[in-house]
Amino acid sequence: MKSHRKELWFEIPFRRAFVNITPQVEAALAESGVREGLVLVNAMHITASVFINDDEPGLHQDYERWLEGLAPFNAGSDPESGGYRHNRTGEDNADAHLKRQIMGREVVVAVTGGELDFGPWEQIFYGEFDGRRRKRVLVKIVGE
Amino acid sequence: MKSHRKELWFEIPFRRAFVNITPQVEAALAESGVREGLVLVNAMHITASVFINDDEPGLHQDYERWLEGLAPFNAGSDPESGGYRHNRTGEDNADAHLKRQIMGREVVVAVTGGELDFGPWEQIFYGEFDGRRRKRVLVKIVGE
Amino acid sequence: MKSHRKELWFEIPFRRAFVNITPQVEAALAESGVREGLVLVNAMHITASVFINDDEPGLHQDYERWLEGLAPFNAGSDPESGGYRHNRTGEDNADAHLKRQIMGREVVVAVTGGELDFGPWEQIFYGEFDGRRRKRVLVKIVGE
Repeated sequence: MKSHRKELWFEIPFRRAFVNITPQVEAALAESGVREGLVLVNAMHITASVFINDDEPGLHQDYERWLEGLAPFNAGSDPESGGYRHNRTGEDNADAHLKRQIMGREVVVAVTGGELDFGPWEQIFYGEFDGRRRKRVLVKIVGE
Repeated sequence: MKSHRKELWFEIPFRRAFVNITPQVEAALAESGVREGLVLVNAMHITASVFINDDEPGLHQDYERWLEGLAPFNAGSDPESGGYRHNRTGEDNADAHLKRQIMGREVVVAVTGGELDFGPWEQIFYGEFDGRRRKRVLVKIVGE
Repeated sequence: MKSHRKELWFEIPFRRAFVNITPQVEAALAESGVREGLVLVNAMHITASVFINDDEPGLHQDYERWLEGLAPFNAGSDPESGGYRHNRTGEDNADAHLKRQIMGREVVVAVTGGELDFGPWEQIFYGEFDGRRRKRVLVKIVGE
């Protein structure tokens, strides 16, 4: 069994963004030499996501709006006025911990014949919900 | 390390449905000869899900109603009236891209002694949110 | 390829709770002798979750409140008054089946150098949404 590990680093200049990281995952797979196996791609931070969906800017705006409706940003810490207890720690990112649960921490992708075994529109995204600092994604490849 | 790959094809005659695919995944596992390892089962399309839950029709109706509340179908493209920017591409399926994020793209299941290592009620479902066309699920099995 | 399997058992005395199971997963990894590979940790029951986030009590209260808003507990079975069809089976736990879809069934974690390959704040939690009975989590480790 072979294994290969790579970190992808980000410093998104905004609070929230979606970044297509498929080329970086493909590059890591090529470096690994793995032809058959699995790739795990996960956010190493708990206010960010890795997910698979469409590389379509309108959809990304829909996600942004939808997530804001389901888990609104609020820097306050009083739940009665829409704040979050987590923000009593001095953070203002509780909403990011919630948004990340909707979009997910990780994806596992099959490797077949040395390539990501994808359907026609599948692309891997980093979802940042509390940016403006350096954060990482882990790519771990196991197989033969 | 052994690996085995199988595609499951669907053409659901409705927009939305849940289909128990556990027997097909078990058949793929038997074909693989893998006794210890992992099975990845993922939707290859980005408006569909693979998830594990209960094979109970009432629950599936609850999911349908709940998802419709969290991410309502709307063929329009004006967010101010409940539409989605994604639908400006000519699609009417933006809600399906959202519903799929709640229900998930994939499951990873342990293989132990040649069988899916399941709790008492776990069953694998294909969740279709934009049907009426041919779509696929990937089953990838790795192990020994 | 090595593989190792362990069950973690819980009997949460409340309906809902979050339990940090990182130490138990680390213990299972040490027992396995695996240095490079993947760990799958999944709820074996369909009204519970395994997820990775922050070990911060305020955040857990935020999750509890947020999930209750997205999928409220209701023992009834009439959807028109907030109940769930699933409860017609005699259960009162339909909301738990919904909450678990938001928080997820499983996590897959990379193993590097014999350790869980985690970012600075990642911790693994068991999320119970229908407790007061014995339930299990599966830890399956594959690698070398």
